[in-house]
Formats: sequence, C-alpha cells, structure tokens
Amino acid sequence: MIIGTVVGSVVSTRKADRLVGSKFMIVELLDSMQGAGWRLVAVDSVGAGVGETVLVATGGAARLAPGYDGAPVDAAIVGIIDDGAGLS
Amino acid sequence: MIIGTVVGSVVSTRKADRLVGSKFMIVELLDSMQGAGWRLVAVDSVGAGVGETVLVATGGAARLAPGYDGAPVDAAIVGIIDDGAGLS
Amino acid sequence: MIIGTVVGSVVSTRKADRLVGSKFMIVELLDSMQGAGWRLVAVDSVGAGVGETVLVATGGAARLAPGYDGAPVDAAIVGIIDDGAGLS
Amino acid sequence: MIIGTVVGSVVSTRKADRLVGSKFMIVELLDSMQGAGWRLVAVDSVGAGVGETVLVATGGAARLAPGYDGAPVDAAIVGIIDDGAGLS
Amino acid sequence: MIIGTVVGSVVSTRKADRLVGSKFMIVELLDSMQGAGWRLVAVDSVGAGVGETVLVATGGAARLAPGYDGAPVDAAIVGIIDDGAGLS
Repeated sequence: MIIGTVVGSVVSTRKADRLVGSKFMIVELLDSMQGAGWRLVAVDSVGAGVGETVLVATGGAARLAPGYDGAPVDAAIVGIIDDGAGLS
Repeated sequence: MIIGTVVGSVVSTRKADRLVGSKFMIVELLDSMQGAGWRLVAVDSVGAGVGETVLVATGGAARLAPGYDGAPVDAAIVGIIDDGAGLS
Repeated sequence: MIIGTVVGSVVSTRKADRLVGSKFMIVELLDSMQGAGWRLVAVDSVGAGVGETVLVATGGAARLAPGYDGAPVDAAIVGIIDDGAGLS
Repeated sequence: MIIGTVVGSVVSTRKADRLVGSKFMIVELLDSMQGAGWRLVAVDSVGAGVGETVLVATGGAARLAPGYDGAPVDAAIVGIIDDGAGLS
Repeated sequence: MIIGTVVGSVVSTRKADRLVGSKFMIVELLDSMQGAGWRLVAVDSVGAGVGETVLVATGGAARLAPGYDGAPVDAAIVGIIDDGAGLS
C-alpha cells in the first residue's frame, strides 16, 4: 500500500453505472513513497476527508475494500493514518 | 484511477476478435498524475470524446467497465470529469 | 494498453511447457507512451512482424489474448495499428 | 518480489474491517531494487521487525500471504532475508 | 515479460510456508528493458543459473509458472534466452 494526503475530490456525472455513489478522492503521495509527489484518484471506504493522511490499496486490492466488489476501480482508501502529520 | 485528457484515437483492423467494435482512445495523463504527461491507450465505456478530461481505470478494473468482461484490455475510461478544465 | 514498435524477437528453448510454440516479440514503446523508449517482451496473438506498430495489453489482460489462457505471460500483442507510422 | 528494510510502522484506527489486527510495516526498498530508496507499506506474515531485510510480494501475491486472503492489501512481507546486511 | 541476467540469489529461512523449497533469484534487468538496470527477486521454474539471461513473468503470470500455483510470488523466471549474450 502507499500513503498519501487527500488533497481534494473530483465529480463525474457521466460514469460507469457501478460507480454511482462513489466519491473520487485525489490523493497526493508522500515524498518518501513510491511515486513520490504524484497524485492518483482513489475511491473511499472509510470516510476520509481533505487533509487526512490515508492508506491506499491499489490494483485488485481496491475491489476488496468495502462496497467496491465488482466495481471498475484500481485504488481505494482503506485506512486513515493516526499519526499522519509525523510522516513525510 | 488516473485522470487524463483524450487527445485522439487509433484504429486497428487486425486485432483480437474480442476487441472488434472497441474504440481505442489515446489519453494523455495530467501533469499532476502518476505517469505525468505520458500517454496510454484506453477503451471507452462512457462515450468520451477528444478534449474531454476522463477517469481511467487500469489493470483488472478495466475489464469491469461495461462491455469489456473477458476482453484483453488493461485500461478503460470509466468516467468523464465534470470540471476537468480546472485540473492540471 | 500501450503502443510500441516490434523491433525483434528472442528464442527460448528451455522454458515453461505452457509457453511452447509462443513467439516472444521485443516491443519498443513509443516516445509518447508510458515507459517511453523502453522495451518489453510480449507474446503475439495477431501475427505481428518486425517494424509494425502494435497495441500491447499487459497484466492479466495478456492472458485473455487468443491462445494464452493459463500461460505465464504478462504482455501480449492484441492489435496492429493501421496508421502506426504517424504516431510517435 | 522486491527486497527492502523495515524502517517502521504506522497505526490506523479507522480502517477497513478486514484489516483489523494487521500490522502495517514501512519498508524502504534497497538501492539496487526496482523503486530504489522509495518506501511502501506492507502487511507482515512472518513476524518481521524494524531493521530486518525482508522479501515483499506485491499485487495479488500479497493476498496469498498467510492470513490475508480477501483482505484489501497489495503488498506483504513473505520472508526475512538471512544475509540481508550483505545486500544493497 | 522482461529480460534480465541472473546475478545471484538470496536465502530466507523464515518465510511463508508456501515458499518452502523455492529458490529466490536476483535478476538484473537489461539496460534496454523497462526498469533498466534495476533488480528484482524472481522464483525459478526452469533451472536457471547465475549469469544466464532469462525471461521473467510478473504479476499473476508468475503464479502460472510450474510449481507456483497459490504461492505468494509476483515474479518468476519462465524461460532462458538462447542468445542472451547478444542482447543489452
């Protein structure tokens, strides 16, 4: 998994039916992480908000996040880091 | 998922049977995204057009886009971003 | 998917049984593509030849190319681009 | 697989139910490895500790590590390298 | 798939049960390949030795190499290149 900060979200009205109701969060990866500084879009399964430091699971793991079985997603927030401010 | 702009499409006459009828869109990733500025080819499941900002699902997620079950594809456009012009 | 040019092939006599009869093509990715300029090895499902511009599916998608179900392959040529010379 | 050093761990109280009880280790990849110097988060299946050199399996392989079947994880420590100090 | 040279191996005594009996080979990717010059760890299914040029399958493909069904591995040597010395 990788750790990043939620920096915003995007809205998509025209999307695959299976994605209706999903929130698309923009996550910026921490500087120390693989893919440092880059952003990706992840669906949320834990109620994460902007500014929180989150754990993102990618690939097939994203579809094992609660609520995303069978959905065309490849990244999901699966945890919120308790002491995120101390990471970089 | 990653966000990019549809910059064109390619045509392939000789292709795997399962791909007949698919449109192959060239998507250029936003500068802020993982893989910044690079292009990939994605099939389309939402009727995206050139110039639109789109959400692309990769890997096995692409085969969960409507119409691509069992197709040899690893990237699919699964949503069109509403406020794409404001992203970079 | 990614687009590249077939630049050659390699031969492997000692290989997994399931790969007997497969042709291993070396594909060099276009400069505009993710992984620009690098090469990978893909099996062929459409009769591609050296110099042709091809569409390559990676990951599990490769095993959905005709003839590769259950084979230990992670990249397959699934289409030949009609107007490949115009791409870069 | 890739080899890295366990440099710490993170705690996540709010997380997907399936992850309750998992320990999230931060692994820094060896300089010689693909993704050199970058960090990722892996669950542990072998009792690895900080400072140990470990073998990390990624993607679907992580969910084949003991205890992670069906969990939304994409990286797992599956072995501890005996002579890790000699690697770079 | 990617092509690399076997440069050594590592030993892991404490590992997932399913990996008992596996040999972990360190493969350095050819300069022309995606991930040029970097190393990864692959299990062996064809009896490859140090100095040999090998074909490596990654992701789920690795678990289709003979003997690795259900094992937590993401890279496997699936072929030895006949004319490896001529590649770079």
